[in-house]
Amino acid sequence: MKKTSLKDIAQQAGVSTALVSYVLNGKEKETRVGEAIAHKIREIAKELNYQPNHLAKSLRSGKTYTIGLIIADISNPFFANIARVVEDEAKKNGYTVIIGSCDEHAEKSWDLLNVLINRQVDGFIIVSCEGSESQVHYLKERNIPFVLLDRHFPEIQTDFVATNNYKASYDAGIHLIQSGYSRIGIMAYKSNMYHMEERVRGYKHALRDNHIEFRDSWLKEVHFESMDSEVKTAIDEILASEQRVDAMIFATYGLAINALKYINELRLKVPSDLAIVSFGQAEVFDLYYCPITYVRQPLEMLGKTSVEFLLEKLKTPDEGMKQILMEAKLIARESSKPKPAALSG
Amino acid sequence: MKKTSLKDIAQQAGVSTALVSYVLNGKEKETRVGEAIAHKIREIAKELNYQPNHLAKSLRSGKTYTIGLIIADISNPFFANIARVVEDEAKKNGYTVIIGSCDEHAEKSWDLLNVLINRQVDGFIIVSCEGSESQVHYLKERNIPFVLLDRHFPEIQTDFVATNNYKASYDAGIHLIQSGYSRIGIMAYKSNMYHMEERVRGYKHALRDNHIEFRDSWLKEVHFESMDSEVKTAIDEILASEQRVDAMIFATYGLAINALKYINELRLKVPSDLAIVSFGQAEVFDLYYCPITYVRQPLEMLGKTSVEFLLEKLKTPDEGMKQILMEAKLIARESSKPKPAALSG
Repeated sequence: MKKTSLKDIAQQAGVSTALVSYVLNGKEKETRVGEAIAHKIREIAKELNYQPNHLAKSLRSGKTYTIGLIIADISNPFFANIARVVEDEAKKNGYTVIIGSCDEHAEKSWDLLNVLINRQVDGFIIVSCEGSESQVHYLKERNIPFVLLDRHFPEIQTDFVATNNYKASYDAGIHLIQSGYSRIGIMAYKSNMYHMEERVRGYKHALRDNHIEFRDSWLKEVHFESMDSEVKTAIDEILASEQRVDAMIFATYGLAINALKYINELRLKVPSDLAIVSFGQAEVFDLYYCPITYVRQPLEMLGKTSVEFLLEKLKTPDEGMKQILMEAKLIARESSKPKPAALSG
Repeated sequence: MKKTSLKDIAQQAGVSTALVSYVLNGKEKETRVGEAIAHKIREIAKELNYQPNHLAKSLRSGKTYTIGLIIADISNPFFANIARVVEDEAKKNGYTVIIGSCDEHAEKSWDLLNVLINRQVDGFIIVSCEGSESQVHYLKERNIPFVLLDRHFPEIQTDFVATNNYKASYDAGIHLIQSGYSRIGIMAYKSNMYHMEERVRGYKHALRDNHIEFRDSWLKEVHFESMDSEVKTAIDEILASEQRVDAMIFATYGLAINALKYINELRLKVPSDLAIVSFGQAEVFDLYYCPITYVRQPLEMLGKTSVEFLLEKLKTPDEGMKQILMEAKLIARESSKPKPAALSG
């Protein structure tokens, strides 16, 4: 990368590099540079399209006006869209966002963190992946400003902006029960992540509060990496069980999409054969023959607030933790419409 | 950001900072450091979790093992997925990818380029947006290694990896004609970008080569920013025209999704009221009641090859241009199935 250097300008102007540096850093008054030569240096710098080395500058000032955004999976439209919101909000505040995706691998997330710390971002917004607790501790110990977005670790005190997943899942369960469904299953990722556990917990409590006994066979946990095959097996099992479910909650968009493909293959009709509520959001929920009821997470607000929190933290680092759990909204549509029996009853 | 510095280590070891630097940079043999003290320094560095300053290092070595990926729109699943491929391929080669999304704005793309040049990436992979020709010239003039991905400027000599859009669109037109459709419209973005022009050109030539006269009212160009409303108007117009179309090609995934929503609202049946072929790829094309015929771009190969080209360029900068146009594949499904008349004819 051949960039115009101070030396290049100095040579063309016939002056010392130090003099060029003084002029371009606005310090010509500290020296005895005449205005004519200062003007000449500035003109040559413009001609040669000189770019001040922000890098060296930022090493001194400690400010880069850059935010590092680490997301768990760029190919998940929820994260891609939230990244877009974060960018827009950051830009409004004069910040540029550089993004890394860790594809749900903690070790890749370490790489990205190191690369971006070394590139001197002012702070981080992070959608954590499983097993990345030590990274959060690392950032805390080093006083590197960060805000966790969408996912957080309840046992680690940090700033975070997330959805109230327990409540969202509870509401989804209540909605299905009120629509006349009583054998309700849930499919989630096999994960120790809190947001996933909360979704399962909320669902269970919705059943409990309505005196429906939860059956182990109604909970299907599949691995992210082998989702394609495991979703099929899980659907097969949940439909073959003695207490065959009449409705299902999908804890993520990816699970729902995979399941819908297989449900189509099986020629099951939604909702008469199986009612559905899903987390996440995607155009496919609108365009499916039977529009899918979903839990709308406050994507815009999550993204915007994470930027707001981080910028406040950069301004006043000692102001204390900022934590917020935002409410999701259930968007009820045909895939969970009341059972005919419930209508007449 | 408080990181462990050489000075911290020096203080704890009771030696000079210079000595620590010599040892940690593997130059202890150049000095008269005993192995005992060298060992002590390394142990303290480990204890304090010292991270070598790659930034300062890379300023000397000129190597960061980082690729800057600038994509036109992160919320477009085609680009989000291609970013994922680029990351995976880069990782296999020991590179980390940092991503910026310019949201189809040339000026935002300038920002990102500057931020990432200043952060010393080794090179760029770029999905260009409209009006960014000067940025490409800028990179060329400065000998900054880059490869254009998916979109390129035919009037600027650069390395690129792209789809043969002309051929892809031509094939889509031929496919519809062979399926018995003869009044075929196309919806594209209003854009001077070459890939978009090529998609329109291919479609027109498919008509021409089959002696179908192209009508101006069959070509609808809408603006990216106001797509939501313009797509509706365009559909209204194309259906109201005297030569009402019986089939449509959508030049992008975003256009198709918007159009399908409106087509549903209008209660038009695909393909009997309107046959459809779309560019792009998305789960929704599988899950729509009538699976959508689409042009499958070689996403994996595009992403992988762009990394390959860039890494070769980094190794041997003077090897000359690498340019490749890859073929797309038409995936024929129900949305363009043969017209009943064509079947019997």
